[in-house]
Amino acid sequence: MCRWMAWHGQPMLIEEMLFNSPHGIVDQSLHARMGAEPTNGDGFGLGWYGTGDRPGIYRSIQPAWGDPNLRELAAHLKSPLFLTHVRAAIGSPVQETNCHPFRRGNWLFVHNGFIADFHLLRRDLMLAMDPKLFADVHGSTDTEVVFYLALTLGLMEDPIAALERTVGLIEETGRAHGVAHAVQASFGVADGESLWAVRYASDGHARSLFASADVDALRRVYPDNPRFRLATEGDRLIVSEPFSDLPGVWDEIPQATAVTVRRGGVLEKRPFSPVPVSSAG
Amino acid sequence: MCRWMAWHGQPMLIEEMLFNSPHGIVDQSLHARMGAEPTNGDGFGLGWYGTGDRPGIYRSIQPAWGDPNLRELAAHLKSPLFLTHVRAAIGSPVQETNCHPFRRGNWLFVHNGFIADFHLLRRDLMLAMDPKLFADVHGSTDTEVVFYLALTLGLMEDPIAALERTVGLIEETGRAHGVAHAVQASFGVADGESLWAVRYASDGHARSLFASADVDALRRVYPDNPRFRLATEGDRLIVSEPFSDLPGVWDEIPQATAVTVRRGGVLEKRPFSPVPVSSAG
Amino acid sequence: MCRWMAWHGQPMLIEEMLFNSPHGIVDQSLHARMGAEPTNGDGFGLGWYGTGDRPGIYRSIQPAWGDPNLRELAAHLKSPLFLTHVRAAIGSPVQETNCHPFRRGNWLFVHNGFIADFHLLRRDLMLAMDPKLFADVHGSTDTEVVFYLALTLGLMEDPIAALERTVGLIEETGRAHGVAHAVQASFGVADGESLWAVRYASDGHARSLFASADVDALRRVYPDNPRFRLATEGDRLIVSEPFSDLPGVWDEIPQATAVTVRRGGVLEKRPFSPVPVSSAG
Amino acid sequence: MCRWMAWHGQPMLIEEMLFNSPHGIVDQSLHARMGAEPTNGDGFGLGWYGTGDRPGIYRSIQPAWGDPNLRELAAHLKSPLFLTHVRAAIGSPVQETNCHPFRRGNWLFVHNGFIADFHLLRRDLMLAMDPKLFADVHGSTDTEVVFYLALTLGLMEDPIAALERTVGLIEETGRAHGVAHAVQASFGVADGESLWAVRYASDGHARSLFASADVDALRRVYPDNPRFRLATEGDRLIVSEPFSDLPGVWDEIPQATAVTVRRGGVLEKRPFSPVPVSSAG
Repeated sequence: MCRWMAWHGQPMLIEEMLFNSPHGIVDQSLHARMGAEPTNGDGFGLGWYGTGDRPGIYRSIQPAWGDPNLRELAAHLKSPLFLTHVRAAIGSPVQETNCHPFRRGNWLFVHNGFIADFHLLRRDLMLAMDPKLFADVHGSTDTEVVFYLALTLGLMEDPIAALERTVGLIEETGRAHGVAHAVQASFGVADGESLWAVRYASDGHARSLFASADVDALRRVYPDNPRFRLATEGDRLIVSEPFSDLPGVWDEIPQATAVTVRRGGVLEKRPFSPVPVSSAG
Repeated sequence: MCRWMAWHGQPMLIEEMLFNSPHGIVDQSLHARMGAEPTNGDGFGLGWYGTGDRPGIYRSIQPAWGDPNLRELAAHLKSPLFLTHVRAAIGSPVQETNCHPFRRGNWLFVHNGFIADFHLLRRDLMLAMDPKLFADVHGSTDTEVVFYLALTLGLMEDPIAALERTVGLIEETGRAHGVAHAVQASFGVADGESLWAVRYASDGHARSLFASADVDALRRVYPDNPRFRLATEGDRLIVSEPFSDLPGVWDEIPQATAVTVRRGGVLEKRPFSPVPVSSAG
Repeated sequence: MCRWMAWHGQPMLIEEMLFNSPHGIVDQSLHARMGAEPTNGDGFGLGWYGTGDRPGIYRSIQPAWGDPNLRELAAHLKSPLFLTHVRAAIGSPVQETNCHPFRRGNWLFVHNGFIADFHLLRRDLMLAMDPKLFADVHGSTDTEVVFYLALTLGLMEDPIAALERTVGLIEETGRAHGVAHAVQASFGVADGESLWAVRYASDGHARSLFASADVDALRRVYPDNPRFRLATEGDRLIVSEPFSDLPGVWDEIPQATAVTVRRGGVLEKRPFSPVPVSSAG
Repeated sequence: MCRWMAWHGQPMLIEEMLFNSPHGIVDQSLHARMGAEPTNGDGFGLGWYGTGDRPGIYRSIQPAWGDPNLRELAAHLKSPLFLTHVRAAIGSPVQETNCHPFRRGNWLFVHNGFIADFHLLRRDLMLAMDPKLFADVHGSTDTEVVFYLALTLGLMEDPIAALERTVGLIEETGRAHGVAHAVQASFGVADGESLWAVRYASDGHARSLFASADVDALRRVYPDNPRFRLATEGDRLIVSEPFSDLPGVWDEIPQATAVTVRRGGVLEKRPFSPVPVSSAG
């Protein structure tokens, strides 16, 4: 069980989302309300676009709530697009290579959920990867394998379609091993331009996922809120669970749905339908 | 807010108390029930008597629930007397020198609670220490200062009396700075022979503290419990909160009370009454 | 590049070998003399047999010279058989799952050296493992892969023969990928009863490896040395580089040689000859 | 023993100085040439001015050479003024609160060297601090005490004069305890506008310290070096030891000398003369 959030919009001091929001992601590392567990203290990660050729990554095995470096970075980095993930390990070791986001080139990837009976499927799934990617898997999580499978199946061309094939492949592999509901997931993906999010579980009950409402709606509902006055049309948040209890601020993303957030804050929704892919193919 | 436990009795594989008990101290690092917070994830420490001249100490800034080394040590160390502490930092940094237990010579010290407005009192309290001890304070917690004050005021001769003077000194110093209720505490102390525990708060509402009932009582209440059949008369546990919900197994230590556990499991109780000591004295 | 040592003999306080020897393994973490680099500061590990069902392991990503917990454990653990390894990472991440020794059941494994062009061979080598072991690989080092291959090829029945097959398999796999000299190694293996060590490199120039001379020889050469007076016939050390410069104390293990140390200190030498095994087989 | 460097000039990607220079500070963490020890592996720190109200700080107890987060930050942060420090601990614990730079408000402070017999002087020196600062000392190094003394004695008004008083105070305190040569130091100080450096030791033999030559000189000597073609007049480096062996690039700062680097790269030198201050005063 984990929690994640993504920001896409005006360049934003990262601490605004991590520390200065009422139930921000760092608070969720200690007091998650909608997760399987309230505590997500097995490391965390931050990936951000800004200076430099590709996104930066800061990952740590300390709980997010107690890491002074995260507080420093968040207070000194501005970014128009970033993802943060707080981790609750379920079996795999607490090490930086198991912390999200995962990165390849300009792409970042986070995941809340799991592959069921991953130890049964791990070998077959790793064999289904592009052999050229195999040696770059440095950790031992299911998520890293999902990411490399998605890269193998076209993530950089069409992320949602690639994830539909990836989930299809994992479900097929699961069935071959007697695992009925192989995938439990909310995924976050970014390439520096756009942001994608998927909510899907093989059993139909995926982890919670929300998108911020559009700015016009926010301003109509809360005309006096100074935070919303600073918001621009292009700002969009995707979160595992809402930062605040304000009604009208958050739209739940339905089960089996993918969303794309483009520059300017445009949010597109479409159904997410796994495409069966045989791991032998 | 923290949680601690101490074992005094037959040589015991440490994991029996840390991992194999239903609501043991490692479970309390994630799910404390009686503390101010359920999470005690800001490091932990284990001090044990056994091989070697003085007690051994293992301290880590990882949460106890996720540290593979703690699991290893607990599975491979037997000890007749050990203390474990899981920490919830309130302000001071998460670093090994702030993890309990603290040690000097053969003595170990743990604390659940705090000195109120410690930043106001820290200088005066450190000046009240034996100057020869001053340079050995390596961390920045209130507890380490309490320990060195207690050493200054006779801990190694009479631990309870020294703690009464120490608490008196802190309360006096507090009053001089306008701090009404300076001390909130349960303390644990050991020297390799005996174990002492104190429950005391300046405002009368100290953190919870329990002692295991004597073995005869346990056997009468649970004649069929295999765990209690292995227990001997000399076994005694002191815990911040009970490991299990079994009635009759745990005796609450009253407010403002000190207990001494001697070899053989004898448990003596006495009132704990702070003795005013001026920090100028 | 790394350094390791193993003790097999009378129960020994571990600090005697790690800290109290003139050029012990912890000193080698900072000042190795015979390695490719003087610094082995990318984590370390200790595996020891003693209390508990299987050997204990303590692994840390801190440099061995600066880890206070290692000093504590070494001062409080006695063991008749233990291995210690200090790591100089060459490419793979500094994480506990990449620290040696590796363990399975009662078996421990350490390695100084590398598989050349491991990123080219990693996939084929992991496919050659027993599929049931695949999901238990948690780190990303070449050594862990060597260990699981050796387990696949019979380590628990005949460790030297299994390592000959393992090295043969790696060399074959290397050749298939155009890697001429795939293996550079000194290996250490233990099962709680015996200790095995191998010195072998595909190019004929393996890392240094030494065994302590037998006790009779030591006493004849240094009749007045109190340390050697305490030594018994059954004590034997295997080390990457000698702890001291005393002549006559250390016997270099020749290239392409395997040694077995049995209880009582008996040391047997035999040639080490890789056996070609096809990874398809 | 430690090594540090400071950059003052055009906004610079930090990795240029840390990783892309031939003998940059990260290389010095493993292979220092002019220090008492080649290895500075007991943590490190980076302080930089840029986005945010005050300078950012990233400190870690990992060796600088092996910390993936440092590599990430260095590749994604640009700053016109930053300091980096790699640490070789001499006695005090390896913990983030003992890593340099230290910070107060807009001020950063680094130190290479030590206070002799610090354990004898620590109490008197901490008593000489402004009592309001006492509780903010979170670590246990001599350097943090020097910094808070300098703050007490006017660092924010006139850093060099304050350090002269601070060193004078420490030397006086040393003499009172029978310590002949109390201070061994190169200091680095910054406030976001200017950069100050001091080379001074009580015994006249302070650690090495160098400033980069001015850009005109560099271009005359190396007209074809592309790196120097990008340099501007305002760029200035202060380093414990030169990054490269190019003659004419580095000017040694003499013993008992303070330098000030102002915006535009102007470097002023003056003698550094400790001013006796009684700690009772």
